[in-house]
Amino acid sequence: MSSTEGKTITCKAAVAWEANKPLAIEDVEVAAPKEGEVRIKILYTGICHTDAFTLSGQDPEGAFPVILGHEGGGIVESVGAGVDNVKVGDHVVPLYTAECKECKFCKSGKTNLCGRVRETQGQGLMTDKTSRFRCKGQGIKHFMGTSTFSQYTVVSKFSIVAVNPKAPLQKACLLGCGITTGYGALTKTPGVEGSTVAVFGVGCVGLSILQGAREKKCSRVFAIDTNPKKAEWAKKFGATDFVNPKDLPEGKTITQYLIEQTDGGLDFTFDATGNVKVMRQALECCHKGWGVSTIIGVAPAGAEISTRPFQLVTGRVWKGSAFGGVKGRSELPGIVDDYLAGKLWVDQFVTHTQGLQDINRGFEDMKAGDCIRCVVDMGQGKSE
Amino acid sequence: MSSTEGKTITCKAAVAWEANKPLAIEDVEVAAPKEGEVRIKILYTGICHTDAFTLSGQDPEGAFPVILGHEGGGIVESVGAGVDNVKVGDHVVPLYTAECKECKFCKSGKTNLCGRVRETQGQGLMTDKTSRFRCKGQGIKHFMGTSTFSQYTVVSKFSIVAVNPKAPLQKACLLGCGITTGYGALTKTPGVEGSTVAVFGVGCVGLSILQGAREKKCSRVFAIDTNPKKAEWAKKFGATDFVNPKDLPEGKTITQYLIEQTDGGLDFTFDATGNVKVMRQALECCHKGWGVSTIIGVAPAGAEISTRPFQLVTGRVWKGSAFGGVKGRSELPGIVDDYLAGKLWVDQFVTHTQGLQDINRGFEDMKAGDCIRCVVDMGQGKSE
Repeated sequence: MSSTEGKTITCKAAVAWEANKPLAIEDVEVAAPKEGEVRIKILYTGICHTDAFTLSGQDPEGAFPVILGHEGGGIVESVGAGVDNVKVGDHVVPLYTAECKECKFCKSGKTNLCGRVRETQGQGLMTDKTSRFRCKGQGIKHFMGTSTFSQYTVVSKFSIVAVNPKAPLQKACLLGCGITTGYGALTKTPGVEGSTVAVFGVGCVGLSILQGAREKKCSRVFAIDTNPKKAEWAKKFGATDFVNPKDLPEGKTITQYLIEQTDGGLDFTFDATGNVKVMRQALECCHKGWGVSTIIGVAPAGAEISTRPFQLVTGRVWKGSAFGGVKGRSELPGIVDDYLAGKLWVDQFVTHTQGLQDINRGFEDMKAGDCIRCVVDMGQGKSE
Repeated sequence: MSSTEGKTITCKAAVAWEANKPLAIEDVEVAAPKEGEVRIKILYTGICHTDAFTLSGQDPEGAFPVILGHEGGGIVESVGAGVDNVKVGDHVVPLYTAECKECKFCKSGKTNLCGRVRETQGQGLMTDKTSRFRCKGQGIKHFMGTSTFSQYTVVSKFSIVAVNPKAPLQKACLLGCGITTGYGALTKTPGVEGSTVAVFGVGCVGLSILQGAREKKCSRVFAIDTNPKKAEWAKKFGATDFVNPKDLPEGKTITQYLIEQTDGGLDFTFDATGNVKVMRQALECCHKGWGVSTIIGVAPAGAEISTRPFQLVTGRVWKGSAFGGVKGRSELPGIVDDYLAGKLWVDQFVTHTQGLQDINRGFEDMKAGDCIRCVVDMGQGKSE
């Protein structure tokens, strides 16, 4: 039993008081976990575009003040009543895509989306519709059920998974979002083995899709990005071809180019940009009759995808994927094992690090073209 | 050997001289089939919305003058060299979706679209880039590789299938398009057995989807149409519920209504309207996590579908289907057998009949709300 069990912990956290302002490092009170909840000491957290998206105020569901962050790694500090899937001291990754194993979604066998905590998670609250965070006398919202930008956070027992403690959390935290999202989206796509693939957007997610394509021995793998610095990254992670749309001849679209290069189009394409125009290109460069395009990126609020219905009537399929289609509690430990076995590269993604005090610099790093992931050290010691 | 073999036949045909004008019954010269071609004596033909669409001038690929019609039944009159899949006297259905069994599409096992005659078919020509039709001294275009609005037509050997001669062609002609399109779209959808289904548009295609749902024992089957006369039809063909969106309470959308009625949405939806707004509704009433929406209807030129990408990221799939995903030469004979065995209703679809001289009245019939299909008797005797 830890000395803090059952007590409120005061610790440092990065609070987003309002949209489009820098995060403020504050002393935050983190209440003890209630029934079915787990309090985690967060050691490291990645910064993801989704955090920046909500901070920008463009997320119509974004509510303030809030503690952002959803790509974390930590150690269980204490558990509430009725928690039997993790115990104090476990190395854990918080899951913004919960898995209760009991709801109709979890039992369907068709999706990794879970309905159990969805409604309150969307409201920035725990399932009893209250928050565990207080700062300067007011409640602070949770974010994506994870809020990893705090030295301690509280999550539902359905939103957490224990992973092999041999995995250094400074790296493994990235499996809480971007890497798993890309790697899962490709590797869990039926029929992808040996196929032709195009990946739009060479960031953390795109590079992870490329790794999946390497793992599944895809025969030709195009990576597309307007940033020429990404060519080397893409090739290293498994792309056979890098295409910068800006370098195409005048009047030649990326869609036309890819269809020519592949005798009619790609078997599978993935959008990891969040740009709705790119999503359309990713669909329309699919092969007639069977090409499947998967949307992964998060689009700006109100943005819509469009195409001529003929594209679908002639056999293309438009779909999407959240968290790579991965069921966090059931499948993330196996992905961590893939990492430890060297099948899935993770260390290479950490191009930048910051301390919690400098988390706002981490957001700037992310927006620079030479960053794949910035990991924030929460200043709570090392796990490895 | 027929007395006409190798000779040009002069017969009656309905010629579309220009867009948006009534068809003209003309004496047309139909040349003998060349190598790999078949000349068919057409006994009956349905009239389909796609014929009206091209006649309206809205089809950007529509070229005039042309002999329309693609839902026919007839008897092989003569064959060119190298034709071994049908013989003189066979009862046949022309196929606007060819099947060569040799191209990369046919061999893929993933699609019923065939690449073999596609390019010239789109140009209104046979594969040697010429036409077999002449009228008043000029060449007349073929349409969809079938041109069934002529007493004799010439098609590629890849665009024809022999069917059981016990099937009355006056009815079986409808298996050349609408009925097969709907029945195939549902029955060939993986996982559809026992599921919940919504069908938008209760015409020939929609009713055939409903029949497929009955065959696959779908648990709840919604039919949606703004024409109240379709309620009785829909129920008769397998719908458990008929919904007229105009009858919903003020402010309630069809999407909201269906999601409420099905505890979160449908497993499978089908658009058989060709209206891009309806296509969006059909997608968005699908169940999060696994709902699949299939577009079947042909949209007006330039019309686009759109939605928020979030709809796909949260697990809905948007796809399409042409000719029900049915490979005509391989699979249509089995569908004709389903008809003869009473599993698939066809006779009930023929609500109107016209003689060739009155084919324009058939187009009017089709646009009236009480018509499912108008079949045109080409005045060449009976097959049954």
